[in-house]
Amino acid sequence: MSPPTATAGSYVALCGGIGGAKLALGLSKVLPPEKLTIVVNTGDDFGLLGLHISPDIDTVLYTLAGLANRELGWGLDGETWGFMEALGRLDGPTWFRLGDRDLATHVLRTHMLKDRLKLSAVTHELALRLGVAPAVVPMSDASVATLVETDEGALAFQDYFVRRRCEPVVRGIRFIGAETAEPAPVIRAALAAPDLAGIIVCPSNPWLSIDPILAIPGLRKAMAERRTPVVAISPLVGGAAVKGPTAKIMGELGIPLTQSSIAAHYQGLVDGLMLDHADAAEAHGLGVAAEVTATIMRSLEDRVALARAAIAFCARLRGATPESTS
Amino acid sequence: MSPPTATAGSYVALCGGIGGAKLALGLSKVLPPEKLTIVVNTGDDFGLLGLHISPDIDTVLYTLAGLANRELGWGLDGETWGFMEALGRLDGPTWFRLGDRDLATHVLRTHMLKDRLKLSAVTHELALRLGVAPAVVPMSDASVATLVETDEGALAFQDYFVRRRCEPVVRGIRFIGAETAEPAPVIRAALAAPDLAGIIVCPSNPWLSIDPILAIPGLRKAMAERRTPVVAISPLVGGAAVKGPTAKIMGELGIPLTQSSIAAHYQGLVDGLMLDHADAAEAHGLGVAAEVTATIMRSLEDRVALARAAIAFCARLRGATPESTS
Repeated sequence: MSPPTATAGSYVALCGGIGGAKLALGLSKVLPPEKLTIVVNTGDDFGLLGLHISPDIDTVLYTLAGLANRELGWGLDGETWGFMEALGRLDGPTWFRLGDRDLATHVLRTHMLKDRLKLSAVTHELALRLGVAPAVVPMSDASVATLVETDEGALAFQDYFVRRRCEPVVRGIRFIGAETAEPAPVIRAALAAPDLAGIIVCPSNPWLSIDPILAIPGLRKAMAERRTPVVAISPLVGGAAVKGPTAKIMGELGIPLTQSSIAAHYQGLVDGLMLDHADAAEAHGLGVAAEVTATIMRSLEDRVALARAAIAFCARLRGATPESTS
Repeated sequence: MSPPTATAGSYVALCGGIGGAKLALGLSKVLPPEKLTIVVNTGDDFGLLGLHISPDIDTVLYTLAGLANRELGWGLDGETWGFMEALGRLDGPTWFRLGDRDLATHVLRTHMLKDRLKLSAVTHELALRLGVAPAVVPMSDASVATLVETDEGALAFQDYFVRRRCEPVVRGIRFIGAETAEPAPVIRAALAAPDLAGIIVCPSNPWLSIDPILAIPGLRKAMAERRTPVVAISPLVGGAAVKGPTAKIMGELGIPLTQSSIAAHYQGLVDGLMLDHADAAEAHGLGVAAEVTATIMRSLEDRVALARAAIAFCARLRGATPESTS
């Protein structure tokens, strides 16, 4: 292995579904595949009809494989719905829409898991078969289930997110199984890599998509004891969430829709926060380094530019930190 | 229950896939649903990607529900293949074609079986949901697997039938698990019904589709000790099979392609054999009663006519047998 340099350093990205996958795609276009490990939230994983469904992993895999459905914003390109139609005819559950093509992933994953392969091994295999080169790794091989405490009681994540369309008022969020979960071994190795140059927290929902990852003690500890900068991209732009229920949940939890709130949420775990130009006025007094850039990712160019900016931000912070490895 | 009469009697039909399902449909148009029990071969059942697939049961259910694919001759009407396409992309097994709509049945069945429902209960539930009124019953809740001994070694049924397209030369056929399998309870009840007026062996492949049923000792015994006539419809017409590998297998097993061979195969188990007009010359000296009629089922009318003819043949044999219940 060649000696690590600033540009040849490796990176770990933490991400959830759609927003995170966009930046992961950008990173994959900028970094050599062996220098990128994408740690994906599996708190949304659930079982339906005996199938093991990992929505965030699939979103990342499909996005990196160039197979993501741009119209829907989720699932596979060119998707069809014959299975759902027939399932409805058989009075099966139809609240979670499983596309015909998407089903191949769920059926194959479930079958491999039943063959005693671990989720990280299955994900590695699926990535290989889809031609996805960077390491895409579930946060843990153990089951960690996001539970949303609402004014209607505790709801399993997909019950809250899909079946109830995020309508119930959120009172709290728990991650069942996180305390005893270990990070997937590949993650430990990536975080311990001598050339690790930065950890990038994607602009996913901090409460629903990133917190499950951080709830795993071994991961949180590795982040807290970091030798390299950790930078987060704020999911808020101009006091609103780019996508999804982040803003709604923050409001329900009594958290102001400000960049300070995001910085406070990640306090002690991140060294820098990247904000959109729209929030330049909030860039001071956050308690962490701030970087103002364009964070909304509409095009592939946006994704690549934000990836480059995040890597450059890490480099800047590495230069400023005594424990820098570069 | 009203007292049994010749026309109000109940019937049990034994059948395999496509040919059997055609006559089962005819019978379902002629008999009240509570008077018809369709016993279906499950020797072809197999597991693929963790899914429990019951091809003959599905063919019967889809046919009776009016959902069968007429162009393909198997599977569901309006079927699409997105799952297979995506499965191929994932390097999954594609030798057995699973349609998107068909998959709903397999996924739901597998899930119900994992919930510890027996195959007969699952089949009953699926039939209900598809609006299929007659009892459609797997021959057993136990696993019985048809194994085809060939010049290339022993092949699991679907390996022989689908993957190898019936090309290997058949040396023998075995039914693994049959000796210890019990008939599904519904079948015992149907065979013991006081108004049982006949048992109809559909024109399915005697070696591959009917023999697995007859290999179950409890079923074979009930047939041998019958109180009512058993009639079989020959799958041969003019020295050839209407469909499928029956003729090829008979040739490979050294069995002449004659009605005598079919009668000999079912000897001691059937009282009458129905032959097509094309084989009228073979109607004598079969060792069982013979009935010459039109056995090729092209239209729904053909199916209904053959069903009526089989019922009438049972009535004629009942009139002629001292142990008649009518």
